Amino acid sequence: MLKSANPNLTAADQRRLARRLQIQDAALELVMQHGYDGFTMDDLAEAAGVSRRTLFNHVADKESSVLGPMEEDEDIPVVAEFRAGGPTGDLMQDLVITAQRIMDEAQEEDTCAVERHLRVEDAMRRDPKLMALVDARFARFTALAAEAICARQQWPDDDLRARAIATALLALIRLSLEELRDRPDNPGLGDAFREVIAAFNDCADIARPPSA
Amino acid sequence: MLKSANPNLTAADQRRLARRLQIQDAALELVMQHGYDGFTMDDLAEAAGVSRRTLFNHVADKESSVLGPMEEDEDIPVVAEFRAGGPTGDLMQDLVITAQRIMDEAQEEDTCAVERHLRVEDAMRRDPKLMALVDARFARFTALAAEAICARQQWPDDDLRARAIATALLALIRLSLEELRDRPDNPGLGDAFREVIAAFNDCADIARPPSA
Repeated sequence: MLKSANPNLTAADQRRLARRLQIQDAALELVMQHGYDGFTMDDLAEAAGVSRRTLFNHVADKESSVLGPMEEDEDIPVVAEFRAGGPTGDLMQDLVITAQRIMDEAQEEDTCAVERHLRVEDAMRRDPKLMALVDARFARFTALAAEAICARQQWPDDDLRARAIATALLALIRLSLEELRDRPDNPGLGDAFREVIAAFNDCADIARPPSA
Repeated sequence: MLKSANPNLTAADQRRLARRLQIQDAALELVMQHGYDGFTMDDLAEAAGVSRRTLFNHVADKESSVLGPMEEDEDIPVVAEFRAGGPTGDLMQDLVITAQRIMDEAQEEDTCAVERHLRVEDAMRRDPKLMALVDARFARFTALAAEAICARQQWPDDDLRARAIATALLALIRLSLEELRDRPDNPGLGDAFREVIAAFNDCADIARPPSA
């Protein structure tokens, strides 16, 4: 199992996180062996070495056992700051800063986040069903980002501008996650994203010559 | 079946296109009924009302019978112009113009391209296997776009800048395809893409105040 430690968590939260990650590792292993539809939650409890009751204390359903919990962004402080117009006041810049902070925090919580993500990608390739679930999750993140942008800008729900930039942002996040494979220098989630954004901005600069 | 007519094609090419689209409609119907793995090429020949031999004269394999042929971009004149640095010389602008032209041409070739695309989306929702194939196809289009950008800019293969802008471009194209559903005004492929790009650029303008 991939061990993870975060000194900012209480001992109880640390145990809780360790247990959830232990379940996720077991679930990913079952997907690799039998496919997403090829195992039951009872099989997962057995593979993870916990009771069925303990299992459901830690994961809501099969999907979150494999992919991790789906947090609603509103609960995250950095997203609240973004919705309120921060941290700098520049929409595109704040969108990138907020995404970086979320990725840095994910890495801080789970120091093995990169390895775990690569295991999810392996399992996705093993089973198209899991790939469809990951697609659906990215679509949900895109919708959450668009909703936060509309709230901040006081644009109507479902504004196409918000959906367009949220779509590009999440596609670049996904590219940065793909970038993590085969990297001997072992960058973190946030670093890989910063590299992708820097590369994207280089091109925007090529297109838009500096103002005279 | 969705009928399509393109006055610029010879009668023989028109018949060929009609036959291919007839096969694609039958293939999509079979995916909806039995799933992607639930029918054989013999079943498809029967459903399309053609011989097995005729079937393979028109489609290379099961995937292209359902999704249409995968054209290599280099063969397309507008892509050759892009690779050579045209049409305007501005990288980002030319990328958008070239994508628009490709979508306009696709619509011109198959006047029912929008309806057919919506049927592919329905079939994707029916079967995750098809969704994985569509994902793989978008990944391939993204790689082709990145390759064309590298050729134009004389950047090394696999340059992260090229992959970043190709990723954002293809994500916005995919958003524009999703936009086509439930639109009483019935925009074409190219028009839907132009709307998405205009929305995206509006946000970039918010972020970057006009040069003084």
